[in-house]
Order: sequence, then structure tokens, then C-alpha cells
Amino acid sequence: MPLIKLGTMVYITRKEHFNSAHRLFRPEYSDEENLRVFGKCSNPLWHGHNYILHVTVKGEPNPATGFVMDLKTLSNLIQEKVLEKLDHKNINLEVDFMKGELASTENLAIGIWEELEPLVRLHGVLLHAIRLQETENNIVEYFGNK
Amino acid sequence: MPLIKLGTMVYITRKEHFNSAHRLFRPEYSDEENLRVFGKCSNPLWHGHNYILHVTVKGEPNPATGFVMDLKTLSNLIQEKVLEKLDHKNINLEVDFMKGELASTENLAIGIWEELEPLVRLHGVLLHAIRLQETENNIVEYFGNK
Amino acid sequence: MPLIKLGTMVYITRKEHFNSAHRLFRPEYSDEENLRVFGKCSNPLWHGHNYILHVTVKGEPNPATGFVMDLKTLSNLIQEKVLEKLDHKNINLEVDFMKGELASTENLAIGIWEELEPLVRLHGVLLHAIRLQETENNIVEYFGNK
Amino acid sequence: MPLIKLGTMVYITRKEHFNSAHRLFRPEYSDEENLRVFGKCSNPLWHGHNYILHVTVKGEPNPATGFVMDLKTLSNLIQEKVLEKLDHKNINLEVDFMKGELASTENLAIGIWEELEPLVRLHGVLLHAIRLQETENNIVEYFGNK
Amino acid sequence: MPLIKLGTMVYITRKEHFNSAHRLFRPEYSDEENLRVFGKCSNPLWHGHNYILHVTVKGEPNPATGFVMDLKTLSNLIQEKVLEKLDHKNINLEVDFMKGELASTENLAIGIWEELEPLVRLHGVLLHAIRLQETENNIVEYFGNK
Amino acid sequence: MPLIKLGTMVYITRKEHFNSAHRLFRPEYSDEENLRVFGKCSNPLWHGHNYILHVTVKGEPNPATGFVMDLKTLSNLIQEKVLEKLDHKNINLEVDFMKGELASTENLAIGIWEELEPLVRLHGVLLHAIRLQETENNIVEYFGNK
Repeated sequence: MPLIKLGTMVYITRKEHFNSAHRLFRPEYSDEENLRVFGKCSNPLWHGHNYILHVTVKGEPNPATGFVMDLKTLSNLIQEKVLEKLDHKNINLEVDFMKGELASTENLAIGIWEELEPLVRLHGVLLHAIRLQETENNIVEYFGNK
Repeated sequence: MPLIKLGTMVYITRKEHFNSAHRLFRPEYSDEENLRVFGKCSNPLWHGHNYILHVTVKGEPNPATGFVMDLKTLSNLIQEKVLEKLDHKNINLEVDFMKGELASTENLAIGIWEELEPLVRLHGVLLHAIRLQETENNIVEYFGNK
Repeated sequence: MPLIKLGTMVYITRKEHFNSAHRLFRPEYSDEENLRVFGKCSNPLWHGHNYILHVTVKGEPNPATGFVMDLKTLSNLIQEKVLEKLDHKNINLEVDFMKGELASTENLAIGIWEELEPLVRLHGVLLHAIRLQETENNIVEYFGNK
Repeated sequence: MPLIKLGTMVYITRKEHFNSAHRLFRPEYSDEENLRVFGKCSNPLWHGHNYILHVTVKGEPNPATGFVMDLKTLSNLIQEKVLEKLDHKNINLEVDFMKGELASTENLAIGIWEELEPLVRLHGVLLHAIRLQETENNIVEYFGNK
Repeated sequence: MPLIKLGTMVYITRKEHFNSAHRLFRPEYSDEENLRVFGKCSNPLWHGHNYILHVTVKGEPNPATGFVMDLKTLSNLIQEKVLEKLDHKNINLEVDFMKGELASTENLAIGIWEELEPLVRLHGVLLHAIRLQETENNIVEYFGNK
Repeated sequence: MPLIKLGTMVYITRKEHFNSAHRLFRPEYSDEENLRVFGKCSNPLWHGHNYILHVTVKGEPNPATGFVMDLKTLSNLIQEKVLEKLDHKNINLEVDFMKGELASTENLAIGIWEELEPLVRLHGVLLHAIRLQETENNIVEYFGNK
């Protein structure tokens, strides 16, 4: 009996990373108010992170390849729609899908989901999770607006 | 269209760690019986671990901050209710919520959940998971008594 | 009130690893076709990986031990049914449950599930997840054919 | 015979981390010239990193404590002289010992050495190495100007 | 020209780990004095760690095997002389080479060196370094009493 | 006083990885003899690893760039001379500088040194170390034939 049967759902994850600058602040607040709400993350002269991104998609493996989706293809999608926009960039000033948004890890994870979800679907699989690690101690996961 | 919509559920995780001593044993067993059941973990003179703890909460990001919950606040809760009780302590002898319990990783994860769940809820979010790593090869996860 | 109550479900994970050779190819394709579909992974002279395996089972902790299942027992099962077959082996040529299958990480994860699921059940717990990491950037998860 | 003998030299290392923004550029260059020399690291709108710092000191363990130096004391020195200046800061604009310097990892490691070396010596030990990791793939080590 | 030439020195490292209980204290001090000097590490009821040990030996590779030393042999030596004594033990109470010594990481590294150095030499290689990690942030290295 | 002074020596490291197949054996031995000497690493049907490579060079930082050497250039050298030859290849059968050599990690590290050393020197820096990790527990370092 073959390993892949009708309805066999498998989850595959690609890990990528990008290095960006950002700050947490509301423009209508004074620097003092921003400091009170966002702490040192509100520094007006910016700080930055090595973000680690895990993108998980799910689907039935293709019996012809054994792949849910070629991870090279998934990596290329992430490269084009996410890393090109974020890597070595200022999240507050340069990233189209973050314009007007607070540059929190939560919002960034939602924004990355919105970027990737329609494209991933075109490849016949479903986006399952965006996992975004800002530091070793702080991790955000988003599974779509279900 | 803003990234945060009605019902947008996001999961955030804080990683912490603590170093404790413990042993696995039943007081009504002899040392030989404890050795047979619990192996070298039953050593009456104790051993210990660097435990790694991931606490995951879920909720809707606050549009005013972009945060599900300030991770600094979550870290402070864990510090006060979990790390102060466990770090550099003897789990069998010094931890109030483990009194009378076997000091297994499973029980420790449940105990940490019970400590944190009511407090986390007061901050308007839900505790989703306690992930407790005793060694690199042994991990326990608890998602509440559902 | 004891930590373990009726219906308390806990998840425990054992991490193991194995080092194997494999190649991705279809025997009815020429080397050129395999190269086009599977890239450098189709090298007819093989390549290999340090696979990292996480096996997660779930169940109610036994009040007598505090364990869902003795992780040593789980490790022994994985050793006997998975590592003995895969470690320092050629996945395409030497692994019984991969005969006639494409040696993709997806198929390997499904095959490991099929090997372990009946045995784990005999120990009174349920297999929850097979997580198989081929490289730091490529991860597959399988939760059974549900 | 005691473990610590005359002249027993031991090396101890404290790991710390900080998150900063920076850019690589020469002010007398145009943006195009900076891009050619420094690549995407020259982005005028900044980017950032989670830097990982290992500080190694060497000395003879104190027979009264078994310590070369209390690692808590070393951590406090690093906190005061390095992390307070660098964490959540802009390396080019806000760090006194980097003023007028290119914000390369090499220069940053030398600057951290200069900050710590005199202080460490006051505690009766010698600074041995500064190891600074900018990304998982890029590491700089400095052992002083010997 | 063969890769291994006369005098080609190569360093090989084996990583192992052990989980132990300990406390830092001087028996002639009161608990208050010990707390002042050793902080929470002086807890009279013990705490513990997952220690990570790297043992590095150096020598000329054997042209017949390509090995400086069979790492399986080195691992067996470490198992017999170090891990059997330390793993799941109380360092202060149960480890012969630590009797009467402060259970600091420095002393433990020196003690492990003394255990292994004569045995390693019998295999025709030289012990180069003991690297002992008590926590992710605290590391000790010892290169012998040179 | 500038950070970079005459004779300031700094060490920079680039981390790369490759996935290869190999076996340890001597062609003049029978399979039984090879099994006795090399254990399961002698499997005639190959096995493989995710090798992790750290290449360290040393030199004086260039005051014009703050770089010892552009790590992108170093990465390109490693790509061309090492990874193209080793990644997704069979070390015994396909790697020119390993022909006729035992495919031990020691020999592989020496071979990589020989590949890179002359090229690195052309860039005005010195090769300091090749660190090659075959598994998480087995590491080889080579510092040249000094």
C-alpha cells in the first residue's frame, strides 16, 4: 500500500531570515509617551533585529514527486514577496504592506501572511502558519483570520 | 485595509528558563523500587536540569499598540509566579504547587499552567500552551484541561 | 487538588536523529529529467543528511508515575523501528518501508508514522505528530491520515 | 592534591546579546558609491541585527570561591559599559566609542574590547577575547592588539 | 600529494552532556555568608544543570584510518571516566574527584581534565581542551596547567 | 584615537554548510574488515551528513571599509572552491581533492584548507582555521601544517 493515500495531509515548513530596522511608536504621541508605552523599542533613532521566519504550508503530497510543494519554489516566493521587501530595510519607512501600521511582530506576521497567502494558494497548497521570531525569547505565530 | 481585523487571533510566545534540582520517586517505594521504576532519575541525592519554558498566549492584537500583550508584562508574570518559585530551587522540596506531586516534566508543565492561567486571563488574553523542555531530547506540552 | 485530573491530555516529545544517504528520482525518468524535476537532489551518486526527528505522543499522565509514557520506552521503540532501519543507511536501497517510494521528506515522515503508530498505541498513548527536519531550513510534519 | 594549583589558568566566558540598528557607509561617498562598496548594508534608512556577544576572560581560580571571576560581576560590567550603550540603539549615531568609525562588526568588536579591557583588569583577570556574531553566518573575534 | 603529511596536527572534539545537582558553598560559612558570596547558587537544598561538555584532543591523523582518534573510543572514555560519575549525580556528594572541592564550573572543568588527560595520552593523542557549559550564558575552558 | 591601529589583528568567520554522501573504508579491506575498523560508517551503500563549515581568516581591518575582508567575497570563494564540489555530492566518488583519500572529517578539513588557503592569501588575509562539524557531537579543526 503506497504511503500517500487519498486525503493524506502533510505540513512543510521553510525557514528564512531577514535583518531589518524598526521602531515601535505612534506618530501622534510624544517621544515621552512612546517611551512609556513601548519602552526602549520606541527609540526614535531606530534599532533592529535578525528576524527568523518559518512559513508552513499544508497539502497532499504529489505522488509523482513525493512533494507537497517544491520547497525551492516556496523559498522563491518568500524571497520575492517578503525578503526583498524586508531584508536590510527599515520596516516603518520602506515596506509597502506595513505603511501606516505599527511595526510590531504581530502586525509583521499578519502582513507576511497577507503577502504570501494568495500566491501559495495558486500552487495548490494552503498557507498554514507564519511563525516570526524577533529575538530568541519573543515569537509570534499567525494562522490566518479564521 | 488595516492588518488587524475583527477576530484576528494571534499567538505570542515568551521563552524563559530556570535551573532546578529534582528527583523522581514515590515515598512509599524503597530506593530499589524507585530505581526500577524511575531509573537514574530516582537518585536520592538529587540531580538537576536547565529547564527551557515557552509560554504561549493568544488574543487579538490591540490596534493601539499592535500587541496581543506586552511580552515584557508576560515575562514579569512568569518571573513572579514561576521562576521565583523554581529557579535554583529543589522542585520536590521547595515549590508550593508541586508539594505532594511527582516531579515529572508532565506534572511541572500542568503546575505552571495552573499558576499562570488565571493571571494571564486577567490581561485579556488566553493561555494557549506551556512547553517545557527538560533536556534537548525530552519535551512536554500542555494545552489545558479541555 | 491533584495536578492530574480525569481527561488531562499532555503531549510529550522525544527528539532523535539519524544520518542517511538518499536521492530523489523516478526510475522511469532519464538523469536529465530527474535533474530538471528534483534538481541537485537527484544526483545518481547520492547525497545525505543528518535528519532530526521529533516524535510526539499524547495521553493522560499515569498518576503512579507522573508520566504520559516513559520517554526511555518511547526512545527504545524509535530506536528499534526507525533508527535501526535508517541510521547510516541508504534510504532508497535499504529501508523496507520506503521500497518503491520516492525518498522525499514527506514520504519518510509518513513512513515513520506507519512504523510507530501501532506500537505506540499498544502502550496506551496516541501518536500525535512526526516532525522530520532534513536541513535546518526544511521541515515536514505529519499528524496521521485524519 | 587540590584541583587549583599555582599558575592554573582557566578561561570563562559570558554570553550576552543586544539589538541595534546600523548602516555601513562612508559619509564622503555618494549613496551609489556606498552601495557599490557596502552592498545592501549601506541602506541610508538603516537596518539592524540581534548581536550575540561572548566575552572571555582568563585568570587563576580563587581557591576561596572556585571562581576565576564571578560571572555575575562580569555580566554587570558588560551591561554597564556595553549593553547600555548599544542595546536598542543606533550604532552610528548614539554609541560614544563608535563615533567617527565605520560600524563594521570588526570595529564594534575592537570598540567593545577597549571598553571592557581596563575594567576587567581591575578585577584581577585578563580580557582574552571578544567574539561578536552579527548573524548566524558572520562572526568576528578580537584578542587585543598584541 | 597525500592530505596527511608529517607533523599535520588536527584537533577533534566530542560533545557530550550530563545532568547533575550541585550547590556552591563553603562548609565553614553560615547559610547567610554563603548566600552573600554565592547568591542563589548556594541554596542548601540544591539546584542543577544540563552541563554540555566538549572534549578536544589533538594529534596527527593515522594514514590507515584518516582518524586522529576514533571518536567512538573518545566517547567511551568520557562515558566511563566522566559521565558515569557525574550524570544524574550530586556533584558535591557523589563525585570522587570533586570531594573537598568547591563545585564551581572552573573546578569541574579542571577535574574532568585530570580524569581524562592520562587516558587520552595512552591513545597516542594529547588532550587539548575541556569546554564546559553550565548554562547557555556561562562557559568555562581549561587547556591544562601549562 | 581610531579603533584600528597598526598591527590590529582581527579574526572573521564565515559559516556555510553542505549535504553529502560518503563512506569510510579501505578498498583493500573486505566489507567485514571495514565494518570492524569503521563501524556503521563503512556501509557500502553510503550514508550522509549535513556538514557545517566555519572558515576563519585573520588580518588587519582595512580602514577604508572597516573589514578584514568582505565576508561576501569569502563566502563566494567557499562557494566556488568547496561547496560546488561537495554539496549534494558523493565525497568518495566525485570530489577531486578527496580522490584516493579516506573520507574522514579530518581529511576533509585538511582538503578544504588546501583548496582555500592559496586563494584567501591572494585577498591579503591569512587562513586561520577550518572547523568542520559532521554531526552535532563530532567536530574537527585544522589550523594548517605549522
